[in-house]
Amino acid sequence: MSQPGLWPRFISLEGGEGVGKSTNLAAMAELLRATGRELVVTREPGGTPLAEDIRQLLLAPRNEAVAADAELLLLFAARAQHWQQVILPALRRGAWVLCDRFVDATYAYQGAGRGLDTALIDRLAELVLQGQGPALTLLLDVDVATGLARAQQRAALDRFEQEQLSFFERVRAAYLVRAQAEPERIRRIDASQPLAQVQADVAAVMAAYIEMCE
Amino acid sequence: MSQPGLWPRFISLEGGEGVGKSTNLAAMAELLRATGRELVVTREPGGTPLAEDIRQLLLAPRNEAVAADAELLLLFAARAQHWQQVILPALRRGAWVLCDRFVDATYAYQGAGRGLDTALIDRLAELVLQGQGPALTLLLDVDVATGLARAQQRAALDRFEQEQLSFFERVRAAYLVRAQAEPERIRRIDASQPLAQVQADVAAVMAAYIEMCE
Repeated sequence: MSQPGLWPRFISLEGGEGVGKSTNLAAMAELLRATGRELVVTREPGGTPLAEDIRQLLLAPRNEAVAADAELLLLFAARAQHWQQVILPALRRGAWVLCDRFVDATYAYQGAGRGLDTALIDRLAELVLQGQGPALTLLLDVDVATGLARAQQRAALDRFEQEQLSFFERVRAAYLVRAQAEPERIRRIDASQPLAQVQADVAAVMAAYIEMCE
Repeated sequence: MSQPGLWPRFISLEGGEGVGKSTNLAAMAELLRATGRELVVTREPGGTPLAEDIRQLLLAPRNEAVAADAELLLLFAARAQHWQQVILPALRRGAWVLCDRFVDATYAYQGAGRGLDTALIDRLAELVLQGQGPALTLLLDVDVATGLARAQQRAALDRFEQEQLSFFERVRAAYLVRAQAEPERIRRIDASQPLAQVQADVAAVMAAYIEMCE
């Protein structure tokens, strides 16, 4: 768990569309708050006023085709700002940081989804994070059809949610490959289960992790 | 002039604050239009709807400190979009492209001005442009005090124009070093002269260049 550069109190939550991130994020925050430590709950892209402005640029449906490298650079611009202004200062003062999506999402969406070179993402991640990141990542995983059916019950679709089924299949596959490659850090949660069971699984991982850290 | 990767019909105009870029850009556009070829006049950061949105994020004064690497990544995101959607298609169909600021500005403002590592800018430029760029760059050069005095007669200052004098001294010095290193591509114009003389100098460089190209 103490891989160099990974911050024990930095936890990210990952997953595709309709996996139940919001509900589980709130439950995870409750468990972290109960430790009595400061907790910063944040999200990517976003987390600072400038980074949230960048998020709007990324998510808004546009008539203009968005170049894949422009999208990638925007994401890392938002991440650089978020990291410098919010996440790193919080970690340095000993707070928990719980982040809705982080760098794994870039490998899944822009790497696998858009087909951008992974080595390029590596270089930008190294530039912005210098090998730092969350020591624990929960991956909420559900098959794409189920996830999209859930997501489509919500409001208007953003620019990513308008992608083709094959895009989301590549995103899911990339998340699973990353979880297999880093089983210590990334814990897959079966989000196809009833919500109560998903939350119980999340709570079990979190309780064990918090006990180990505190 | 035909350095590999440089597009003969791509011309950029560079310079610090208050050097008279707008007036001279208009005069340059007139000369290019007279060739009878299509002409695209554009600017950085900006030049597409998304890139202009990024420009607004970059220029707006903010309460939030902007991380230097976030600023750099935003600039290259805008450039990637502008390059893919506007500049490269125009060059490929044989148009002239006249751009108010391009990659030299990033070396001057973010490299020298903000103190970011030049090797990092090189890597992002390589990623986005793959060694391509303008074959001719006009650098309007004037001492910093004169330039700022002119700029301050205009409307409210943007986030860059609010910088310290020493920032602009570093920007100017970096432009001059680049002009010395690439005398074939970058032509320095003495913008401390009366405007009529500056315009005559610009017109002379442009006329010779156009004659060589057409």
